[in-house]
Amino acid sequence: MNQVNDILSLIGRAGRNADGSYTRTCYSSAYFEAVSIVEKIMIKLGMATERDAAGNIHGYLPGTGKGLKSIIIGSHLDTVPSGGLFDGAYGVAGGLEVIRRLQEEGKTLRHPIEVYGFNAEESSPLGGTFGSRAVAGLVTSDQPGLEDALKEHGLTVQKILDSKRDFSDAKCYLELHIEQGDYLYNEGLKIGVVNGIVGVIRYKVTAVGHSNHAGTTMMKNRKDAMVAMARLIVEADRRCRQIDDSLVLTVGTIRCWPGSENVIPGRVECTFEMRHMDKGKTDALICDIRKIANAIGTVTFEITKNIDKGAVYCDEHLMKVIGEAAGRADISHVVMPSGAGHDANPMAYRLPIGMIFVPSKEGLSHCGEEWTDPEDLENGAEVLYRTVLALDCED
Amino acid sequence: MNQVNDILSLIGRAGRNADGSYTRTCYSSAYFEAVSIVEKIMIKLGMATERDAAGNIHGYLPGTGKGLKSIIIGSHLDTVPSGGLFDGAYGVAGGLEVIRRLQEEGKTLRHPIEVYGFNAEESSPLGGTFGSRAVAGLVTSDQPGLEDALKEHGLTVQKILDSKRDFSDAKCYLELHIEQGDYLYNEGLKIGVVNGIVGVIRYKVTAVGHSNHAGTTMMKNRKDAMVAMARLIVEADRRCRQIDDSLVLTVGTIRCWPGSENVIPGRVECTFEMRHMDKGKTDALICDIRKIANAIGTVTFEITKNIDKGAVYCDEHLMKVIGEAAGRADISHVVMPSGAGHDANPMAYRLPIGMIFVPSKEGLSHCGEEWTDPEDLENGAEVLYRTVLALDCED
Repeated sequence: MNQVNDILSLIGRAGRNADGSYTRTCYSSAYFEAVSIVEKIMIKLGMATERDAAGNIHGYLPGTGKGLKSIIIGSHLDTVPSGGLFDGAYGVAGGLEVIRRLQEEGKTLRHPIEVYGFNAEESSPLGGTFGSRAVAGLVTSDQPGLEDALKEHGLTVQKILDSKRDFSDAKCYLELHIEQGDYLYNEGLKIGVVNGIVGVIRYKVTAVGHSNHAGTTMMKNRKDAMVAMARLIVEADRRCRQIDDSLVLTVGTIRCWPGSENVIPGRVECTFEMRHMDKGKTDALICDIRKIANAIGTVTFEITKNIDKGAVYCDEHLMKVIGEAAGRADISHVVMPSGAGHDANPMAYRLPIGMIFVPSKEGLSHCGEEWTDPEDLENGAEVLYRTVLALDCED
Repeated sequence: MNQVNDILSLIGRAGRNADGSYTRTCYSSAYFEAVSIVEKIMIKLGMATERDAAGNIHGYLPGTGKGLKSIIIGSHLDTVPSGGLFDGAYGVAGGLEVIRRLQEEGKTLRHPIEVYGFNAEESSPLGGTFGSRAVAGLVTSDQPGLEDALKEHGLTVQKILDSKRDFSDAKCYLELHIEQGDYLYNEGLKIGVVNGIVGVIRYKVTAVGHSNHAGTTMMKNRKDAMVAMARLIVEADRRCRQIDDSLVLTVGTIRCWPGSENVIPGRVECTFEMRHMDKGKTDALICDIRKIANAIGTVTFEITKNIDKGAVYCDEHLMKVIGEAAGRADISHVVMPSGAGHDANPMAYRLPIGMIFVPSKEGLSHCGEEWTDPEDLENGAEVLYRTVLALDCED
């Protein structure tokens, strides 16, 4: 019997709030409670365990083959404040369930198998996917604010740099995760075979007009930064929908100056974030946004790029193995991109990655209402288990 | 010779900043410096002076007639932070110049003449036009936050209520002010004969959608409060321009939740402020805004009225006298509404009011760049002087 739900419940004893949500922010005591729970399970399963300065927990089980590389399974144990049970913890539970089930069924793998419970995948002053970036050697000492953020946790940059691992002994990285979107749920599909993690490009967009008295300045004489920004948002949203179905554009922050009810805003600042697997689509969108901004005329727009994280591609062979595993288990599946970033993202810089998605009810995540049905969680663990068995037949 | 510029310069010694702007916020020491300057001028002109708990300075000069009512001239001595020299102080200087010139020309009025330098006309925790509202008996003890705001200045609500004056001995209230808009400046006209102060209606407009992950939620499935609010702002702005040339709509504040670069805003709150002399125009606009909001569909809008200050009308006889005074002085003039509120607003509840506007360069106000040419300031003082002489011939 698949026990992924039980293991997930055990992890969920850490950081559970009275309202049913979960708070295990990075380096918090609730986070380390979850680490201890996972560590105990690992030890019970006979794994060698290790914690590192980045706050990650790592378990290792040797294989029977000679000179074969590790199959690594991982995800994160931290949550956003008032987050859900499933985001991250499900992937760690899935990895542990693979090993438990192997032992229940009296099977031993030829390959070593490893499980990571990563720290600080969610946004924090350390930057997202911090634990997996540390292990992948992608944290650099020049990251702005890193030293101060680490000092809060009694750590130095050097200790994090020392957490870097050599992956020459590893075969691949697998991650099981809830979709956090509504595609599988709306389509009634059970498994997403992820083909990649979309690129994220973020711009700071500023409208610079002229602040003036709201009562004495006629409409025709205004250089109203608020109205100009509103026009840009409306037109950019329309254009985004025309370019591609899976292109997304989000204006998630806005500020206006002077910010008084009776003063025409002279300055409005927003962030425009766009995501797609294909950089050509996001390039086309920002090009059009610049044209729209220039055409507005009443104000000047400043558009500067803040973040440009390229798309990451899943390994085609791993995608094939995952798809076949789902097929053998008779579980409906579809190839799809991940709109969100994951620990698989930094790992892709070191190893072939494969990701398995299960449905999120109504696409909700990062909130107490986050939900995936127990059967769906079992489906994901089943596909992961069969994927590991298939990969173990390879070198 | 008209000396209004000299008197204004004297007042401008109080609260002048290094960058050339002026800061005399209500009850500040810089504000009371200005009061002292005005008080000294009043005493030099032979006026009886009085300060009240609301922070106002008042000067009184008896007339030669028997049982005749006072002609009152007033404006405010406080400024916004980093405001200009002219807003408010010019009107007080104009009143003092009338009396100085009468004495220079050896004239005495039949009517008593009074000058008010009001406190706290600008926005503050006390509410705008605080000093003139106190004198007019329009401050009420149930004003939210009043008691705490007064405590900051060592005052009680009762002391303010006691500042109320009986206006049965007064004939009219006159106020000379810079336009703070760009109408006179753009049209090349010298004097505005104000026919009223526009009504101000302010709504809190909230778009309630659904917060979700910026990467995993397809555009077609979003309930994006930011895009919906942007559409409402664009359409409302367009509609405002269609209804009437002098109708104005300002979205001066905006906040979004959760306010994260990678989360679709589930809630956006704005203020929509509209002004016009004719309530029919603002009613038509809000009615259309509600229709536009309902038609957007992806989110729910909540639209609630926060403030509804009715328009205030200037006295038609006083308007005629002011217009004739300008005509006799051969100064170009036009009848126009005031888009901004003034101390004349509360005074209108007690007395017939008349207002005289002079041009503001490029319509700028509430900033260090606020400017009116010395000749324009003299023109305004000339019209005020002639108006007072004409009114003194009446009962």
